[in-house]
Amino acid sequence: MATKIGILTFDDFTDADLFLHWDLLNRVKLYGLSNNWNVKILGTKETHLSVSGLKVETHGQIDEVDSCNAVLLTSGKGTRNIVNNDSYLSRLNLDPTSQLLAAQCSGSLILGAKGLLQNKEVSAYPPITKHLIEYGANLQKKSLVVDGYLATASSCLSSVLLSSWLIEKLVDEDAKKIVLESIMPLSGFSDLNLF
Amino acid sequence: MATKIGILTFDDFTDADLFLHWDLLNRVKLYGLSNNWNVKILGTKETHLSVSGLKVETHGQIDEVDSCNAVLLTSGKGTRNIVNNDSYLSRLNLDPTSQLLAAQCSGSLILGAKGLLQNKEVSAYPPITKHLIEYGANLQKKSLVVDGYLATASSCLSSVLLSSWLIEKLVDEDAKKIVLESIMPLSGFSDLNLF
Repeated sequence: MATKIGILTFDDFTDADLFLHWDLLNRVKLYGLSNNWNVKILGTKETHLSVSGLKVETHGQIDEVDSCNAVLLTSGKGTRNIVNNDSYLSRLNLDPTSQLLAAQCSGSLILGAKGLLQNKEVSAYPPITKHLIEYGANLQKKSLVVDGYLATASSCLSSVLLSSWLIEKLVDEDAKKIVLESIMPLSGFSDLNLF
Repeated sequence: MATKIGILTFDDFTDADLFLHWDLLNRVKLYGLSNNWNVKILGTKETHLSVSGLKVETHGQIDEVDSCNAVLLTSGKGTRNIVNNDSYLSRLNLDPTSQLLAAQCSGSLILGAKGLLQNKEVSAYPPITKHLIEYGANLQKKSLVVDGYLATASSCLSSVLLSSWLIEKLVDEDAKKIVLESIMPLSGFSDLNLF
């Protein structure tokens, strides 16, 4: 049976927060780490436009999330239009008891609007902490926070941790390591500790 | 006068190696860090297809590199079709005395094919080290290597360092810091040292 991952996007998405996940998750297929691995970008239109003006084609509608083993909610200004859009939210049939739910940065707001963050441990993404608290979440100042089937990540580069979590849960630890090794800087991350 | 950056792409590009740079470089404009900042994706067709099957629209032809202040060469399997394509290479009028030249992973091969790596210090991207030596380069096992106007980076996540270098050279150190801070994981990179 196929493992199906839906990456949710929308207009005004943050480029890296979609494309980095797309790249990392597809490496599972490119490297032959799973026999039947299907990553789809889901939206409400045939194409969506990023906050910087880049167009991305979708592979299906958001209603498809109910057939996914895992749903990854990307981030960006566009999430603010979704959280008050009842007709949009009613199409998102997410099941936190049988699906992995992964939210990148402000993608967490969509989980909150769906009522899925009540008493959940979540990553404290600074620009939206107030809203996360209003949704009943318990904030943790960590890049990646996992609470059962739900994982939240803060800031663009934490997407590496979030995709890694999905790969480990859906395939195994070896697959996660192979994907991570393929993107790690030659001299590790020491060069990136710039502050 | 506008600061113009050309990001070179082609079919079979590695997704993250294009899109992460695109995102980071565009943050300069999104955050108002430069008045006249123009990032263009340049190719030979109206759209190019990534190695994982994602389509990206180009904003101009590769001949435009000669009007760019900086040229960023992305990476991927597709670079192998370019290095022996004389008509392609002849359209790439790169000037290492007046332009910043930045190569991500196998994008270095294109610089080598243009004869621009002779006696240059470059990052030793493992899958292509043999070719880099054939092009006369001196390999350094570092994530980012800068040699005058030329910088080379190895592996996907080193793109953060390469884009940072461009932003610091073309704007200033403050702009670089603002962009980097916007993508850093909440708990720094310590979580990413997984090996």
